[in-house]
Amino acid sequence: MHKIVVLYPPQPDPEAFKAYYLKTHIPLVRKMPGLLALRYSFAVQGVGGAAPYFCIFEAEFRDGAALGAAMGSPEGQAVAGDVANFAKNPPTLIHYPVESSM
Amino acid sequence: MHKIVVLYPPQPDPEAFKAYYLKTHIPLVRKMPGLLALRYSFAVQGVGGAAPYFCIFEAEFRDGAALGAAMGSPEGQAVAGDVANFAKNPPTLIHYPVESSM
Repeated sequence: MHKIVVLYPPQPDPEAFKAYYLKTHIPLVRKMPGLLALRYSFAVQGVGGAAPYFCIFEAEFRDGAALGAAMGSPEGQAVAGDVANFAKNPPTLIHYPVESSM
Repeated sequence: MHKIVVLYPPQPDPEAFKAYYLKTHIPLVRKMPGLLALRYSFAVQGVGGAAPYFCIFEAEFRDGAALGAAMGSPEGQAVAGDVANFAKNPPTLIHYPVESSM
């Protein structure tokens, strides 16, 4: 399994972010080819201090090639192009092969 | 579901980190009460730039209370106390209720 995680820092209008994210962005994400699972939260908290992020998004793909194909597809480019519409403070994106699960 | 995610920045000796993590830290983590699942990767990559993290750890608990109980248990305190033994650059910890899955 290969995952992509998007970490959104605090935003000037979190309620507007949340509304747009749920109504417009997630429906675009769900169209991505090869998407196996997604999860998100607007209630990210820190441990021993404030969290540097307020929203996290995670998606699963079969492998890195499937993620690459999804990102390069028209649907993936629509998702990437939509981020600036709601994230005034840009997110950190990471991706990785999952090396263990239980 | 409630998740905790630990994001490790680059370390001065990533091979030593990895060896300790697999041999000592993960076995401690597996002893935590209420742990439903765990995943990790030492191959975190960025999108459109270098990744600010090189290792990510994720664990799932039933809810926030279960995570809190796990963190406060002797096993959880052993896990927390072990981090300084291998992470020369300290990690960022976040936790959150998962609000959607597919």
